[in-house]
Amino acid sequence: MTDFFKGIPAIKFEGAQSDNEFAFRHYNPDEVVLGKPMKDHLRFAAAYWHSFAWPGGDPFGGQTFQRPWFGDTMADAKLKADVAFEMFQILGVPYYCFHDADMRPEGANFAESARNLDEMTEYLAEKQAESGVKLLWGTANLFSHRRFMSGAATNPDPDVFAYSAATIKTCMDATIRLGGENYVLWGGREGYETLLNTDMGRERAQAGAMLQMVVDYKHKTGFKGAILIEPKPQEPTKHQYDYDVATVYGFLKDFGLEGEVQVNVEQGHAILAGHSFEHELALARELGIFGSIDMNRNDYQSGWDTDQFPNNVPEMALAYYEVLRAGGFKTGGTNFDAKLRRQSLDPEDLILAHVGGMDACAAGLKAAAAMLEDGKLEAARNERYSGWDTSDLLGLDLSTIETRVRELDIQPEPRSGKQERLENLVNKYL
Amino acid sequence: MTDFFKGIPAIKFEGAQSDNEFAFRHYNPDEVVLGKPMKDHLRFAAAYWHSFAWPGGDPFGGQTFQRPWFGDTMADAKLKADVAFEMFQILGVPYYCFHDADMRPEGANFAESARNLDEMTEYLAEKQAESGVKLLWGTANLFSHRRFMSGAATNPDPDVFAYSAATIKTCMDATIRLGGENYVLWGGREGYETLLNTDMGRERAQAGAMLQMVVDYKHKTGFKGAILIEPKPQEPTKHQYDYDVATVYGFLKDFGLEGEVQVNVEQGHAILAGHSFEHELALARELGIFGSIDMNRNDYQSGWDTDQFPNNVPEMALAYYEVLRAGGFKTGGTNFDAKLRRQSLDPEDLILAHVGGMDACAAGLKAAAAMLEDGKLEAARNERYSGWDTSDLLGLDLSTIETRVRELDIQPEPRSGKQERLENLVNKYL
Amino acid sequence: MTDFFKGIPAIKFEGAQSDNEFAFRHYNPDEVVLGKPMKDHLRFAAAYWHSFAWPGGDPFGGQTFQRPWFGDTMADAKLKADVAFEMFQILGVPYYCFHDADMRPEGANFAESARNLDEMTEYLAEKQAESGVKLLWGTANLFSHRRFMSGAATNPDPDVFAYSAATIKTCMDATIRLGGENYVLWGGREGYETLLNTDMGRERAQAGAMLQMVVDYKHKTGFKGAILIEPKPQEPTKHQYDYDVATVYGFLKDFGLEGEVQVNVEQGHAILAGHSFEHELALARELGIFGSIDMNRNDYQSGWDTDQFPNNVPEMALAYYEVLRAGGFKTGGTNFDAKLRRQSLDPEDLILAHVGGMDACAAGLKAAAAMLEDGKLEAARNERYSGWDTSDLLGLDLSTIETRVRELDIQPEPRSGKQERLENLVNKYL
Amino acid sequence: MTDFFKGIPAIKFEGAQSDNEFAFRHYNPDEVVLGKPMKDHLRFAAAYWHSFAWPGGDPFGGQTFQRPWFGDTMADAKLKADVAFEMFQILGVPYYCFHDADMRPEGANFAESARNLDEMTEYLAEKQAESGVKLLWGTANLFSHRRFMSGAATNPDPDVFAYSAATIKTCMDATIRLGGENYVLWGGREGYETLLNTDMGRERAQAGAMLQMVVDYKHKTGFKGAILIEPKPQEPTKHQYDYDVATVYGFLKDFGLEGEVQVNVEQGHAILAGHSFEHELALARELGIFGSIDMNRNDYQSGWDTDQFPNNVPEMALAYYEVLRAGGFKTGGTNFDAKLRRQSLDPEDLILAHVGGMDACAAGLKAAAAMLEDGKLEAARNERYSGWDTSDLLGLDLSTIETRVRELDIQPEPRSGKQERLENLVNKYL
Ligand SMILES: [Co+2]
Ligand SMILES: [Co+2]
Ligand SMILES: [Co+2]
Ligand SMILES: [Co+2]
Ligand SMILES: [Co+2]
Ligand SMILES: [Co+2]
Ligand SMILES: [Co+2]
Ligand SMILES: [Co+2]
Repeated sequence: MTDFFKGIPAIKFEGAQSDNEFAFRHYNPDEVVLGKPMKDHLRFAAAYWHSFAWPGGDPFGGQTFQRPWFGDTMADAKLKADVAFEMFQILGVPYYCFHDADMRPEGANFAESARNLDEMTEYLAEKQAESGVKLLWGTANLFSHRRFMSGAATNPDPDVFAYSAATIKTCMDATIRLGGENYVLWGGREGYETLLNTDMGRERAQAGAMLQMVVDYKHKTGFKGAILIEPKPQEPTKHQYDYDVATVYGFLKDFGLEGEVQVNVEQGHAILAGHSFEHELALARELGIFGSIDMNRNDYQSGWDTDQFPNNVPEMALAYYEVLRAGGFKTGGTNFDAKLRRQSLDPEDLILAHVGGMDACAAGLKAAAAMLEDGKLEAARNERYSGWDTSDLLGLDLSTIETRVRELDIQPEPRSGKQERLENLVNKYL
Repeated sequence: MTDFFKGIPAIKFEGAQSDNEFAFRHYNPDEVVLGKPMKDHLRFAAAYWHSFAWPGGDPFGGQTFQRPWFGDTMADAKLKADVAFEMFQILGVPYYCFHDADMRPEGANFAESARNLDEMTEYLAEKQAESGVKLLWGTANLFSHRRFMSGAATNPDPDVFAYSAATIKTCMDATIRLGGENYVLWGGREGYETLLNTDMGRERAQAGAMLQMVVDYKHKTGFKGAILIEPKPQEPTKHQYDYDVATVYGFLKDFGLEGEVQVNVEQGHAILAGHSFEHELALARELGIFGSIDMNRNDYQSGWDTDQFPNNVPEMALAYYEVLRAGGFKTGGTNFDAKLRRQSLDPEDLILAHVGGMDACAAGLKAAAAMLEDGKLEAARNERYSGWDTSDLLGLDLSTIETRVRELDIQPEPRSGKQERLENLVNKYL
Repeated sequence: MTDFFKGIPAIKFEGAQSDNEFAFRHYNPDEVVLGKPMKDHLRFAAAYWHSFAWPGGDPFGGQTFQRPWFGDTMADAKLKADVAFEMFQILGVPYYCFHDADMRPEGANFAESARNLDEMTEYLAEKQAESGVKLLWGTANLFSHRRFMSGAATNPDPDVFAYSAATIKTCMDATIRLGGENYVLWGGREGYETLLNTDMGRERAQAGAMLQMVVDYKHKTGFKGAILIEPKPQEPTKHQYDYDVATVYGFLKDFGLEGEVQVNVEQGHAILAGHSFEHELALARELGIFGSIDMNRNDYQSGWDTDQFPNNVPEMALAYYEVLRAGGFKTGGTNFDAKLRRQSLDPEDLILAHVGGMDACAAGLKAAAAMLEDGKLEAARNERYSGWDTSDLLGLDLSTIETRVRELDIQPEPRSGKQERLENLVNKYL
Repeated sequence: MTDFFKGIPAIKFEGAQSDNEFAFRHYNPDEVVLGKPMKDHLRFAAAYWHSFAWPGGDPFGGQTFQRPWFGDTMADAKLKADVAFEMFQILGVPYYCFHDADMRPEGANFAESARNLDEMTEYLAEKQAESGVKLLWGTANLFSHRRFMSGAATNPDPDVFAYSAATIKTCMDATIRLGGENYVLWGGREGYETLLNTDMGRERAQAGAMLQMVVDYKHKTGFKGAILIEPKPQEPTKHQYDYDVATVYGFLKDFGLEGEVQVNVEQGHAILAGHSFEHELALARELGIFGSIDMNRNDYQSGWDTDQFPNNVPEMALAYYEVLRAGGFKTGGTNFDAKLRRQSLDPEDLILAHVGGMDACAAGLKAAAAMLEDGKLEAARNERYSGWDTSDLLGLDLSTIETRVRELDIQPEPRSGKQERLENLVNKYL
C-alpha cells in the first residue's frame, strides 16, 4: 500500500439520502436493472492517462499536480501502477484502460520503449491478478511524441508509419497479454493542419492500410476483443479524418472493414463535431458499429475538448437509453476519459470526481431503464411510423407513385410531432 | 422587356482599373485560362429562388422586398420569369437553377401544382430558346410547405413520401424538358428535430429507397445529367442526414450508389459543418463524388446559413484550386445560392451583388490557375510525400514492420511542414 | 369560453408520482419554499407572441399552425385574447407579457395602430379583471415591420426613430394602463448587418437618447415598474449592441442610467453570447442590474435562438440559485419566451409544453432553495476566500506590496479548487 | 552573431513581382502612405514569447522545437536574447514585446526572479542600444506558473495577489528602464473555471484595485506610455473577466479608469468572443479606448486561440481601415502575437512567417489607405445618416415625438442598405 490515498475508504453504496461524500448514492453494483446487475450494464473503466500521467498543464500553463510518481524511471512507473490499482479498488471499478505511454517510460529507441512496455505489462498482469481489476482496452499513444507531429499512419514519412505500426503491434500484444476486451485506435494526429501541404488521397490510403493491418493482426493472434475507432473532429489537428461516427462509417465501408471495426464514442467529441452524444450513439447503433463509450463531458461554452467528469443526469439518461436500445455493451463499457480540473490538486479530488461520475452514470442508467421498461416512449415512436408498417411504397418507382398520388389525390395532413410532451415524459423518469 | 431593371446596362468586362460599378473588373468570359475560356471554367448560374422568390424575411421580421411579381397567379409567375431572364442576360450568366416552387404557383392539389409546373416549364423553355440561357440544374422544394414539416422522403407518414416522390418525378421531367445538366436533391427536412420521436433506421432506409428511385428514373428516362446531393448539417432541422461530404459518402456506399450520385458543395454548409469549403471540395474529389458548387458565403460569426454573395478572393482561390485539381466542372458549375441582404431593396443591388460575386470568382479562378500552372505548391506537396514513392510498407504486416523497425533501429526525424511558407506562396498569386 | 382548449382541464398539482400528463408533478403554487409560496418565487408569465402570434415558420418554411384567430381584424385579435386568457387560467400562471404587435392588428398608419392598441388594451384590462391574471411586462415590437429593417432607435433615418419613440410611448401607456410591473426593451434590430454602412458612434448616441427618453417618461408618468433591457448578441442582426449583460452595463454606465435600468436575461441569449445562463445572472446581480428572466432553452448544437421550453432541471437549479442569491425577483419574474416546435400542432402541445416548463422550474427552484438552505456551497465559497477577510492588501500600493513580498518571502501555495466535489454536492440536491 | 539564422539575409523590399521568398513584396518601410512612412503607420513588433520561449506543445503533445537556448540558465536567456535581436534586425521590425517569464529564468523565489529580470533587463537595454530596436510593450506573465492557477489579481488567496502586484511592479520597472511605449495587462487566469467556487463580486473588486494600483504606479513613476488591457473571452479559463472590448469598457467605467486605460485588441480573441476584428477595433475607437493591436489570426473552424500569422489581406484591410479611422496608432502598434505551427521547425520558418505577416499587413494598410483617401465609403456612410444632420429629435421627449408622428403622419420608407455594393467597392481597393 502506498500512502497516496491514505485515509480514503473503499467507496460503498449508501443510498440517495447519504450525506457521506465518500459513498455512492446511486451506484449499487449488484442491484439488478433490466435483469442484470448494474455493474454489468455500466462496465466502468478508469483511464490511466488523465488520472495518473497528466500533469495538469494547459496551453497557457504548466504542471499543477505534484505526484510522487512523476519522473521517468521504471520505479516511478511501478509506483504509478501501485497507486492506480489502489484507486481502481477504492472505487470498485471492474476495468481500466491505458496507452503505452501512460504506463511505461519512453526509451531511447523503439526497442527500449518496447522492453519497458513488456516489463510494465508483466507488472500490471500481477496487479490485475491480485486485484481482480481487468483491462477494458489498450491503445497506443501515437500523438504526444514529436515524431508523430505530422501524423502516425498518415505521416508523409514512411518511417513514421513503420514506427507507428510497430508500436501498435506491441500495444496489441500488451492488450492481449492483459486479457483486454477491446483495442482502441484514436487518431489524434491523423488529420492535417493545412490542406496546402496535405495529400488527402495518400493519407487516406495509408490510414486504410494500417487499419487493415490491425484487423489482420487481430485475426492472426486470435484476439477476440473488438477493434474500436474513437472519432473526434479536430484538436489536436485542425481537421481529423475520424471526424464523427458517420465519417468513420464511410471510411470503413471504403476499405471493406465495416464488419470488423466498431466505434468508441466520446461525449465531448460528439459535441465538438456538432452532434449530441445520443445522436452519435443512435447512429452507431443503426449503422451496426456501436462498440463502447468514453463517458466524459464537454463544456458547451468551450470550443475544445474539456474532458470533464460527467454530471448532468438527464443528458446521461438519454445516452444510456441509446446504449440500452443497442442491446447494451458487449465487449465495450463506460470509460471515464475524464480529467480533474487542473486546480483540483488533492488525492480526494481524484477519488470523488470518479465517485460523482459513477453515481451520475448509475442514475442515468436507472432512468433509461425505467423509460425503456415503461415502453411509453417506444410506443409513441412506433405509433408515429405505423403508417409504414403496411405500406408498399418503398418497392415502387417514381412513375407508379406519381400515378397513385394523382389518382388518390393524396393530400398529406401533418400530425403533431409532440416533442414537448415526449420531453415531459422523459423528465418523469428522472 | 419589363421595366424592373430599366436603365441597367448589360455588364461588360472593363478591367481591374474600371471605376464603373456596372462592369466586370476580373470576369472576362472569353479570356483563356489554362487553355479554356473563363466562362467554361466557371459555368456561372443564378438562382431563381433567392433572387426572385424570397421576400426578405428572417426569423424576426417579414417581407422587405416589394416586387411587382409577388403574388400567386400564373401572370405573376410569368412576369417573374421575364424579369429573371432579363437579369440572366444583363449579367451574361450562361445558366440558372430552380425549384418547382420558385417558378410556379402552388396549386390546390398535386395535379394542379403539376399543371402549373408544366405550363411554366414551357414558358421557360421559350425564354431559354430566345436568350440562350441554359438550365444548370433543377430541384424540388420539399421543405417549405407544411406538408413537409416532418420530412419528405424521411417522413413518418407514407403519404408524404408518396407526395414527395411524385413531386420529384415532375421536377425531373421539367429538368429534362429544359435540358438541365444536373438534378439536385437538398434534404432540408430530411433529419430530425428530436431523437425522441425519430426512428433513424426507418428514415435512413426511406431516404435510401427514394434516392434509388431517383437514380432508376434517371436511367429509365435516359437523362444524361448528374444526380447531386447537397450536404448541409442542420438548419432548418436540428440535425440533417446529409451532414457533410463524408456523411453523404457513407450513405451512398451503404446503398451502393457512390457511382451514381455526386455532391453539390456549398461554402456556407461546409462552414456550418465545421469544415472549410476547400476541405469539402478536396474530400469530394478524393472520394470521387465531386459534382458542382454553390458559391455563396457564410458569416463566420453567425451560427446559421447566411447565403451571402461571396467576396473574399483568397478563400475563393483556394476553393477553385481544389476544383481545378478535380479536373474542373464536368456537368457542374458555379451556382450563386446567394441572397441579397434583406436591406438591399433596389434592383441595382440584385445586379451588382451578382457582378461582385462573379468578379470575385473570376479573380479567385485566375489566382488558382496561376498557382497550378506555376506548380510550386504541387511540387512542395509531392516532395513532402516522396519517401512513399519507393516504399513497400503498405504491403507488409505489423509483425514484419516491427522486425524492420527493430533491425534498422528506425528513429524518424520530423521535418518542417512549412505551413507559413506555403501560405506566403499562395498570397503571391493573389 | 372558446372551444380551442376544449376538454383540457385546469392543471393541478398531483405530486411527483402522478402519471397524469395534465398535472403538475413539482409546481405546487402555495407550497412554501424558503418562507414564501413557490408561486411568489417563480412569478410565472406566459408570452403572448410565441404562443398565439407565431405561425410556425422558419427560414426554410412557412406557417404550420392553423389557428382560428389568424387574421388581421379586431375580431381575430379579440378571439386570440380570449384563447390566451383561457390558457393563462388553465395553467394558473399569474402573469403574461406582450408586444403591441402580438395583440393588435397593424393599422394603415401610426394613428390607426395606436387606436387598435388602445381598444385591445381595454379589452385585455377587462380580461385581467375577470381572471385575476396580471401583466408582468409590456414591450414594443420594433423589429418585425419592414420600416424597422435598419433599426429602430439606431436607424439612419430619423423618421424611424420618431416612429419608434412614438410607438414606445403607446406601449408604455398600455403597460401602465394594464398595471404592468415592468417595461422591457429588446433591440432586435439595434445593431448592424455590415460595419461598412454603419456609424456606430451615431447609433450608440441615438440608442442612449432613446433610453433616456424612456426613463424620463417613466418618471413623468409615475410608473413604478422597472425598465428592463434584454441582451442578445445577434440574430436577427449580425451584431446587436445589447450583446450581453456586461455590454449592457457598460452602455448604461456611459449614459449614466445604471441606476435606472435593469436586465431581463434570457437563457438562449446567454448561450449565443458564449456564456452560461448562470453566468449572466450572477454578473447581473454583482453589477446591481438584475431584473427578470426569460426562461427558455437554446439547443447547444444550434447557432441560433431556438426558444425551446426548458427541461434540464440541473441547469435550471443553477439559474434559480443565482436568482435566490440575488434576493429573488422584485418586479421581475419567470417569463416563458418559448415557442412550440413548429411540428407541435395541437392545442394540447401548447398547454403541456408550459406544464413541463413550469414543473422543471419548480423542481429547479426547490433544488436551489435546498442548496441555499443547507449552506454547504456558500460555506465552501466563503472559506475559499477567507484569507481576504483580514487582508489589508487592497489599500496598499505596488511598491509597498513588493517590499512586503520580498521581506516575507511570500511563496503562495496553491490549494485545490475542488470543482468536482462541488459538482457532486450540487447533484445531491437534484 | 549566433549561427541560428546563418545564411538568412536581412529582408528587403523587392516589390510585388519578386520571386524571392526572403524579400518583402508589399512592405516598403519608407514608402509614404497618407503622408507618413509605412513603418510609422504599422509600427511592427515581434513577440518574444511565441518566437523564442514556446516549445511547440499543444494539449496532446509536447515540445517539437529544439532550440539551443532552451534551458533555464542565465546563459540560455542571453543566447535567446542574442537570437531574438538577430531576428528583429533581419526583419527590420522597429519594436518587440515581452513578458518577464520569456526573457529571464524563473528564480527560486520572488527576489531571485526579480534579480534575474534586472540582469536581463540590462542585457536587453544594451541590445536595444546596439540595434536601435525598441520596446513596444512589456507585460507580466501571471498565468503560466502553478501559483497563478486560480488567478492573479482575482485569486482567492491574498498572497497570490501580493505576489502578482510585486511582479507587475518589477515588470513595469523593466518596461520603463527599456523605454517601453506601453504596458499591457492580459488576465489569462482572471476569470473562473466554475461559478460554484467563485465569488465574482470579490474577484471583480480585487481586479479593480489592482488596475488602480497599476495606474497609480504609472503616475508615480512618471511613465508616459499607455496602460493597455488585452481582452479575451476564455481560454485558458472557462470564462475570463476581460471578455471583449465592451466588457472591458464597462469594467473601466465601474472603477473610473476609462480615461486611464486603453485596449490592446487581438484578432483571435475578437473571433473567440463572437465578433469580427474590425468590430472590436471600431467599438474601441467609438468608446475612446483604442490603443494597440495583436495582429494574429484565428482559425475560423477552431474553437480555441490558434495565434497564427495573419495572411488574409481583405480582412486585414478592414482592420487597418478602422485603425486609420481612429487616427492611427499613438503609443500602440502592430504586434505579432503569433506562433509558428508546431510542425514549422526551421529557423527559416520563423523568419518567413513574419515576412508573410508583415507583407500582408502592408498590403492591407495600403488598401485601407486607398479606401480612406478615395472617400467613397465614408461618403456613402455619411449620406446614409444625413437625415440626422438637421434633426432635432434627440432633444425631444416621447410625448412630443408622438404628437409629431401623429400630426405629420410619419410613415418611414425604408432605403436600401447597399451592403453588396459597398462590399464590391472594398474589393476594388484590394
Ligand atoms: Co476527449
Ligand atoms: Co476519449
Ligand atoms: Co445555404
Ligand atoms: Co445551396
Ligand atoms: Co430568444
Ligand atoms: Co426573450
Ligand atoms: Co491569442
Ligand atoms: Co495577444
